[in-house]
Amino acid sequence: MIQKYRFGTPIETCAVIKELPVTEEKLPFFEISSKKENTEFVYKMADKDIVYGLGEQVRGINKRGWIYKSCNADDPHHQEDTKSLYGSHNFLLLSGEELFGVFFDYAGTVTYDVGYTHRDTLRITPEDWNLDVYVITGECEKDIVKQFRKLIGRSYIAPMWAFGYGQSRWGYKDAKDIRKVAAEYRKRNIPLDSIYMDIDYMERYKDFTIDEDAFPEFETFCAEMKEQGIHLVPIIDAGVKIEEGYDVYEEGVKNDYFCKDAKGKDFVGAVWPGRVYFPDFLKPETRTWFGEKYAFLLEKGVDGFWNDMNEPAIFYTEERLASVMERISELSKENLDVDSYFEFTGLVAGIGNNVGDYDTFFHEIDGKKVSHSKVHNLYGYNMTKAAGEAFEKLSPEKRILMFSRSSYIGAHRYGGIWQGDNKSWWSHLLMNLQMMPSLNMAGFLYTGADVGGFGSDTMEDLMLRWLQLAVFTPLMRNHSSRGTREQELYRFDNCDTCKKMIEIRYGLIPYLYSEYMKAVLSDEMMFRPLAFDFPKDAAARGVEDQLLLGNELMIAPVYTQNSTGRYVYLPEEMMLVRMRSLSDYETQVLVAGHHYVKAELDELVFFIRKDKAIPIGATAINTERLDAGTLKLFGYAGATYDLYEDDGYTKAYDLDSCIREIV
Amino acid sequence: MIQKYRFGTPIETCAVIKELPVTEEKLPFFEISSKKENTEFVYKMADKDIVYGLGEQVRGINKRGWIYKSCNADDPHHQEDTKSLYGSHNFLLLSGEELFGVFFDYAGTVTYDVGYTHRDTLRITPEDWNLDVYVITGECEKDIVKQFRKLIGRSYIAPMWAFGYGQSRWGYKDAKDIRKVAAEYRKRNIPLDSIYMDIDYMERYKDFTIDEDAFPEFETFCAEMKEQGIHLVPIIDAGVKIEEGYDVYEEGVKNDYFCKDAKGKDFVGAVWPGRVYFPDFLKPETRTWFGEKYAFLLEKGVDGFWNDMNEPAIFYTEERLASVMERISELSKENLDVDSYFEFTGLVAGIGNNVGDYDTFFHEIDGKKVSHSKVHNLYGYNMTKAAGEAFEKLSPEKRILMFSRSSYIGAHRYGGIWQGDNKSWWSHLLMNLQMMPSLNMAGFLYTGADVGGFGSDTMEDLMLRWLQLAVFTPLMRNHSSRGTREQELYRFDNCDTCKKMIEIRYGLIPYLYSEYMKAVLSDEMMFRPLAFDFPKDAAARGVEDQLLLGNELMIAPVYTQNSTGRYVYLPEEMMLVRMRSLSDYETQVLVAGHHYVKAELDELVFFIRKDKAIPIGATAINTERLDAGTLKLFGYAGATYDLYEDDGYTKAYDLDSCIREIV
Repeated sequence: MIQKYRFGTPIETCAVIKELPVTEEKLPFFEISSKKENTEFVYKMADKDIVYGLGEQVRGINKRGWIYKSCNADDPHHQEDTKSLYGSHNFLLLSGEELFGVFFDYAGTVTYDVGYTHRDTLRITPEDWNLDVYVITGECEKDIVKQFRKLIGRSYIAPMWAFGYGQSRWGYKDAKDIRKVAAEYRKRNIPLDSIYMDIDYMERYKDFTIDEDAFPEFETFCAEMKEQGIHLVPIIDAGVKIEEGYDVYEEGVKNDYFCKDAKGKDFVGAVWPGRVYFPDFLKPETRTWFGEKYAFLLEKGVDGFWNDMNEPAIFYTEERLASVMERISELSKENLDVDSYFEFTGLVAGIGNNVGDYDTFFHEIDGKKVSHSKVHNLYGYNMTKAAGEAFEKLSPEKRILMFSRSSYIGAHRYGGIWQGDNKSWWSHLLMNLQMMPSLNMAGFLYTGADVGGFGSDTMEDLMLRWLQLAVFTPLMRNHSSRGTREQELYRFDNCDTCKKMIEIRYGLIPYLYSEYMKAVLSDEMMFRPLAFDFPKDAAARGVEDQLLLGNELMIAPVYTQNSTGRYVYLPEEMMLVRMRSLSDYETQVLVAGHHYVKAELDELVFFIRKDKAIPIGATAINTERLDAGTLKLFGYAGATYDLYEDDGYTKAYDLDSCIREIV
Repeated sequence: MIQKYRFGTPIETCAVIKELPVTEEKLPFFEISSKKENTEFVYKMADKDIVYGLGEQVRGINKRGWIYKSCNADDPHHQEDTKSLYGSHNFLLLSGEELFGVFFDYAGTVTYDVGYTHRDTLRITPEDWNLDVYVITGECEKDIVKQFRKLIGRSYIAPMWAFGYGQSRWGYKDAKDIRKVAAEYRKRNIPLDSIYMDIDYMERYKDFTIDEDAFPEFETFCAEMKEQGIHLVPIIDAGVKIEEGYDVYEEGVKNDYFCKDAKGKDFVGAVWPGRVYFPDFLKPETRTWFGEKYAFLLEKGVDGFWNDMNEPAIFYTEERLASVMERISELSKENLDVDSYFEFTGLVAGIGNNVGDYDTFFHEIDGKKVSHSKVHNLYGYNMTKAAGEAFEKLSPEKRILMFSRSSYIGAHRYGGIWQGDNKSWWSHLLMNLQMMPSLNMAGFLYTGADVGGFGSDTMEDLMLRWLQLAVFTPLMRNHSSRGTREQELYRFDNCDTCKKMIEIRYGLIPYLYSEYMKAVLSDEMMFRPLAFDFPKDAAARGVEDQLLLGNELMIAPVYTQNSTGRYVYLPEEMMLVRMRSLSDYETQVLVAGHHYVKAELDELVFFIRKDKAIPIGATAINTERLDAGTLKLFGYAGATYDLYEDDGYTKAYDLDSCIREIV
């Protein structure tokens, strides 16, 4: 059951698709506690209560023990004490003495003290008191999530090719570089479906332009790649370069599509192109206009995009830069003592992505001027909505790949997300796993992290272990930053093992796609904590580094360096699979309980649940070449599998008609 | 066997105390490979080889899979891709196909590519080719370490009271604050031996001064604390404030004790006091002079110190600050585009601790001018040596507590080290454990990390779990930074459980001190990887989160949040101890192999090795009150223990005469 509670006059977020009546009853579970500074929702937690949810956040599956903040942030250096990442997903699921879900539908900043200040106290503080709260009760964790997912509407569906392996790097500066990447993969017969184009492809970082010197005859280049079975997936950034004669800029200014400053002038920030205006994506007419701009690339043969820098990331605002420069000029005349030195370095470190700037620019909502700080978390969401709504018109038949960095619940209907700029850290490999279920709860099913890590220098063993997780995630993209070690798979001594992992991925795609589509079309989770299926199992409730995948698998990747195995908890009997390639593997049935499982660097380990089987097919050079005729059941003898199968490209998806039993 | 190889004309480090002849034979194990840019030592590693060592560094006990750099760095934000920490300890131990230790005795920067670029290649690159290399072969890992430790000389011995619990925070601004801390501990009967005094106690951060307003009649205050059984332990920083009339400054200038700039003038850097000169600790006369300054505090009743900021940390050099300011002034006239924006923020971020500055100041060694960059890693070491040598004269009978942030091998003879400024991160709790054996190899036995974490905000459960590791480390200091959550134990709801952990510590001190003294006096390791005692056990060789402690214990603390247990590998039968207080515990004999062991937040878990027992005594309010009469054997029935016992205060330590058997 879902009950809706309203406080004050909320700003509409469109996160929810069902119009529920507002109940006048007292909010259950929470005390509302008022202090001088703020009003808070307070819940007393029992010792063994688990707090699931919060979507894209650092730390464990169980969020207890830290403070989180819903305030979308561009933070590529995030670590375990980071409070905000790229998306805000205000859904929590309490499991323990009580069992309920709660969604705080609120466009501004919300702080979650999940047993940080006091271990037994959950304290939720929205920045003001205008919000809708949905409380969901149900039979079990899965039931509550399903109710919530139905409330927020069906998740975006990616094309089948987006389940292929993708290669990306900030730094492929021209068509030659990309041709080289394609050739290196094809030469080695490593499966590949897509190459991503980071900001380098644009003319001076202007959205919906192509650098003609670097990418002459882009349409032909696109076709050339398609012929090799490779989709090009360009990036689109939020900021629009201020440049006379640039159509996007000119149209935006003329039609008042941009965010305004306090004086009502177009607000100036700076991102990659230098000074930019930010489209006011909260205005429907801005969305329509910006969305149609994607046609520029669609018409050239592109059928996938990633929206980036849409928290929005702001390198500096004109105003703050000017004031910092002025203060530095004063300080430079003094002999910097320790206080003034830290003031100086602090000022400069605080220029970029300064939350204080969110009060200095404005959106127009229903004709009213609204401070960005009040709707900050909706910005990237509405950029993705602009694209998603446009694709419905521009490509009514064919699915277009779309995923975004920034998001809010609601954005899941228009695109996936990737887990944002991360690092080549072992801890971020584990975080990739831990974030999957919380994102699934929030409706984001097409997701994954930058495999191998975006920032910092990767290692061959980290890449291999990361591939062994990413083999299972819908988005499987190897992405890295300019200035870091190159990490295309052919850069590694052990490229052959990498290749085998990719081949296994392609063998698994029919299953993964099937479970993804079933989860999307049934409003369920593809990745679940063990306790969602074994809620009474105290050991399962504590597991933070294994996940159930679909209805047949459990995954338990190795995420520590120099390990040749790991501990795994089996809540029931399962079949261990240790796979070096699609043709080289062992299986072993293990009893329920704790096990130490060997997993050398070249061994992918996963588990098939009791009496289940999954279809595995032959690999192929890309998803288009996958042959359903090669599918064979793998797992317990006698088990069957209901395969969801559609064309993977059009929108003719349907749960009832697309299932066939494999025996 | 130890062989000494010499390349070029090394700068003397005094790391080694034995004069070995230089052998003319070819260096074994390593290829010397010359490339255009540099010459390197190259070793081909087998797949299962383990690389131990490198002392104070991030990542695992097995260092394979990353690049490390010996270049002492003040990096309080270190994470898994950090290359340098506060100390440089150029000792490695290869265990696998071959078994040998190697020490690169070199005062400059050394880079260790331990299978990062190529998984099978260890590549060591000193910045120039003037160094001594010691190659040590032996029967086993422990034997090689023992030979190395004999080569570098006996480790510093801390007073017994330094095994008590210590409370510290940057931010106790006056005697009142410190009295309050003492009172809060004493009121609750939480054992406490020391309170640390961070930079706040000095008069404008000037070494060997006391802020008379904040600490009037310091000598009396010291006595007052001593009466409560509490030692005050002040910090000493490396930089000397430039201030007319300040005796340390005046004497240093007059006698030429400071480092020089390129023009031969006293070199100006900036640290806490603003502009400072750095004592040239590499000059014996500077050391003598600076060391004697500690008398100022010794005479007031202080008997312990920590040397800090001695990498040295440099907030800015006058030269770099001026050039940055000049460039900013130019940039501020331009419209900052993306390139110039990143230049601007990069310049400012690079002002502090810039390695490039190490070429701009100089030491005098044997009358010759030597660039700081050539001897950078010796700086903190020689500051500690200054103190250690002085204490021999100033306090010939009584042991003085001394530990340092920066170090090099050799410094271990004059003081301990703490593991430097860390964070309130679960990953840093694990790192605390992982660093213990590598520091022990390098001679640092009196060591530990800032319990609860120095930077960032701690959590009650992190503090409890950290205490459960620190219960075993010689240095057990709770320390935190100004601006973070207060973390004295009485700040937590669950203070009583914290107290019980401290009481357990005091019950264990007789054993811990005994094992520490045995390790020091026998040149052995107090903390060892499992594989050092079980070298043939493949599972033991992979364990990264358990340690052997002394000859009787194995520790396996919980280091992940919300866990109520963990997996443990037992290389042999052991007795599990689950202890909630000195009087509330269970024991259980577990067979060799893998186990999942429950450990609730209030439960300290450790293991007693087969047929061993340890003495545990009653707790006391401080170490002075510990009563050897209360000691009882705890562990396997029939086992006995050889207790090392001395007065803990004087230097009358002796392995033969101080052992008594406990039955």
